[in-house]
Amino acid sequence: MIDANHPALKSWVEVPKGSDFPIQNLPFGIFKTKYLSAVAGVAIGNHVLDLVYLHENGYLDGLGLPSGIFNQKYLNDFFALGRKMISTVRNRVSELLRHDSDELNAAVREIALVPMNEVQMLMPVRIGNYTDFYSSEEHATNVGSMFRDPKNALLPNWKHLPVGYHGRASSIVVSGTDLHRPKGQVKPVDAELPVYCPSHKVDFELEVAFITCTETKLGSSISTKQAEEHIAGLVLFNDWSARDIQQWEYVPLGPFLAKNFGSTMSPWVVTLDALEPFRVKGPDQLPEVLPYLSYDGPRNFDIQLDVFLQTEKSEATTISRSNFKYMYWNMCQQLAHHTVNGCNIQVGDVYASGTISGPSPGSYGSMLELTWNGQKPLQMPDGSERKFIEDGDTVLIKGFAEKDGVRIGFGECKGKILQAI
Amino acid sequence: MIDANHPALKSWVEVPKGSDFPIQNLPFGIFKTKYLSAVAGVAIGNHVLDLVYLHENGYLDGLGLPSGIFNQKYLNDFFALGRKMISTVRNRVSELLRHDSDELNAAVREIALVPMNEVQMLMPVRIGNYTDFYSSEEHATNVGSMFRDPKNALLPNWKHLPVGYHGRASSIVVSGTDLHRPKGQVKPVDAELPVYCPSHKVDFELEVAFITCTETKLGSSISTKQAEEHIAGLVLFNDWSARDIQQWEYVPLGPFLAKNFGSTMSPWVVTLDALEPFRVKGPDQLPEVLPYLSYDGPRNFDIQLDVFLQTEKSEATTISRSNFKYMYWNMCQQLAHHTVNGCNIQVGDVYASGTISGPSPGSYGSMLELTWNGQKPLQMPDGSERKFIEDGDTVLIKGFAEKDGVRIGFGECKGKILQAI
Repeated sequence: MIDANHPALKSWVEVPKGSDFPIQNLPFGIFKTKYLSAVAGVAIGNHVLDLVYLHENGYLDGLGLPSGIFNQKYLNDFFALGRKMISTVRNRVSELLRHDSDELNAAVREIALVPMNEVQMLMPVRIGNYTDFYSSEEHATNVGSMFRDPKNALLPNWKHLPVGYHGRASSIVVSGTDLHRPKGQVKPVDAELPVYCPSHKVDFELEVAFITCTETKLGSSISTKQAEEHIAGLVLFNDWSARDIQQWEYVPLGPFLAKNFGSTMSPWVVTLDALEPFRVKGPDQLPEVLPYLSYDGPRNFDIQLDVFLQTEKSEATTISRSNFKYMYWNMCQQLAHHTVNGCNIQVGDVYASGTISGPSPGSYGSMLELTWNGQKPLQMPDGSERKFIEDGDTVLIKGFAEKDGVRIGFGECKGKILQAI
Repeated sequence: MIDANHPALKSWVEVPKGSDFPIQNLPFGIFKTKYLSAVAGVAIGNHVLDLVYLHENGYLDGLGLPSGIFNQKYLNDFFALGRKMISTVRNRVSELLRHDSDELNAAVREIALVPMNEVQMLMPVRIGNYTDFYSSEEHATNVGSMFRDPKNALLPNWKHLPVGYHGRASSIVVSGTDLHRPKGQVKPVDAELPVYCPSHKVDFELEVAFITCTETKLGSSISTKQAEEHIAGLVLFNDWSARDIQQWEYVPLGPFLAKNFGSTMSPWVVTLDALEPFRVKGPDQLPEVLPYLSYDGPRNFDIQLDVFLQTEKSEATTISRSNFKYMYWNMCQQLAHHTVNGCNIQVGDVYASGTISGPSPGSYGSMLELTWNGQKPLQMPDGSERKFIEDGDTVLIKGFAEKDGVRIGFGECKGKILQAI
């Protein structure tokens, strides 16, 4: 049997050139249609494969799946079966979709394959806990240069541990959900007192998040070596931020209302299995990290990340091109650090990378950096300029890994900012 | 009908003098016994009243309760019925327990009343989101004096908004759960590099938390006037903290591993109804707050809070006596601020006050303040001294409101620190 990542694999499902979802990907998500409410599916080309139908009709027999496992609002219970079972199901789906397989006959194909334009994607997981890291050296350096001291942009702890903080799980929404501009307290530089108003500095943050598939016991830790066994897969993530609110509120306990008005994630969970061919070595880490943060092998992933901005009057235009491989701290280090104190993890937890900026200005992952806090506005095709995100603007994040003619994509992470209520 | 808070009310259940749970209290919790697994109950004296039994046998008929509402692992679904239904159930339970009621006959009383020493209390709610505020002026001033500048102890934002941050929901445990001393990175003052070791500065934080009973829509806000309609009740809360880990990690995004190794909450949710007689005016707020934070009427609560420390060799000894009434920012302001940007809330969310310190040194709510960062160790009855919490030490928080001979108590919020794994 050829493995599910082999570049030569083809499916009997037509996969258009440039699609994010060839047979080598097979990400998991939750979708609904006019007829189906919240069931699990797998993306293939421009279609979604209905896992409930396959399971109920015996096509997933023998894998050891509990009954009803895909007929749920969230993937949590499926993910809780573990990395191995996630691989097993992906491999089986791969078999069923291969061009030389006729296990699914024409009638079954007609029912089990739903055109993507007939589905609505929902949140893939019920998120118990959400953590946001700050793991891009370029991003931390840019922010430190802007607000502190360009000569000492990184704080003393930054190269010794993956700085992270807890975020709000309740306000994470799936791609396509519009968000209202937040209101809040800001303190204009020339004012003596703070004022209450809509944020004038709404920003996006280009991030990638991983989702855990295990529940650990309080008091136990996960090593960098074991970490990937706890990760179901990755999604794209936009950690919307209100910079003016953030600047006033964040001392001494960190960002709060500047972030929790909403975060957007892409609906398809791309497995680590599918991303296996795209492992790359991360940046050298100097000073040397403490032993609990040391790791073996390539733990970064070469995933190109593009950010598009669409105004009410202009088409989407690329405003940033970055890459997940730039991360200074990798996911194994993040998870090891997160649990080194005994903090327990749960199935469906989301761990975002922090803004992923690359070395060049065109690869910066936020408006704050792209426009250098509004000093260098972006020129839009409609003739307007942007310092930050304006009402009616849509931010679209896309991401894909590509090699040997195979493109493993993430779909869309998209959100529009509406005017403040 | 006399209202459920009337001081003259008596129950046919014997309520020992000094009990936290007279008929005027009737807090809700989740308990299990040798025979029952995770059901909802109400505390009365030294007993727990089994709500599942009452409900299944018709004693709660006519209230409009869904079937099976109390036969659940958590109170979330019951709380989701709203403040009014919580009041209705408390009032009905009050009726059934009054000394002149014979609705529950001897046989029913025998089954429905379980002695507290035969039950194990569990987490009352499934916590979706956990926020910790920083709302005691004395605490913020003490910390600011110690680590920044005694002359400018409060940061500029502190009197303009209730500073808060997100914490970790997964590691909140119920009273009685032991926790291991966390390990992590600390940077000794005289060292060039950080080291990995067990924390040497494990601390408690005396807090009170409120639990929400509604789900709001992303984009909507809660006014200070509406806020209490969203609050099911209060619990005691110990936000354990590792000060040495915190000091190294917390810039610029706030505390993380210093907190998320565990937090302890008391199991009984004391309703706002039961606390109604204990409303008091909060501290004057100057400078004047922005309109969205202004409020009417007394919104603080006079709840005495005691902290006891028990070492392996000595009995529990009082180390702090504080009061919830000292809070500068009240719960209505906290909830209004939290949602002013459109952040949505969910049923079972926990919102902790932040350390509650009073004006005198004996009322400080953490070892950090009581010992002034270890400079003035506490003397224990066994002859030892304490700068911070040592292995084998148990911290017990108790709290009660008292007036007209009625004591509305919270039970225990207790946890022992075990040695690092």
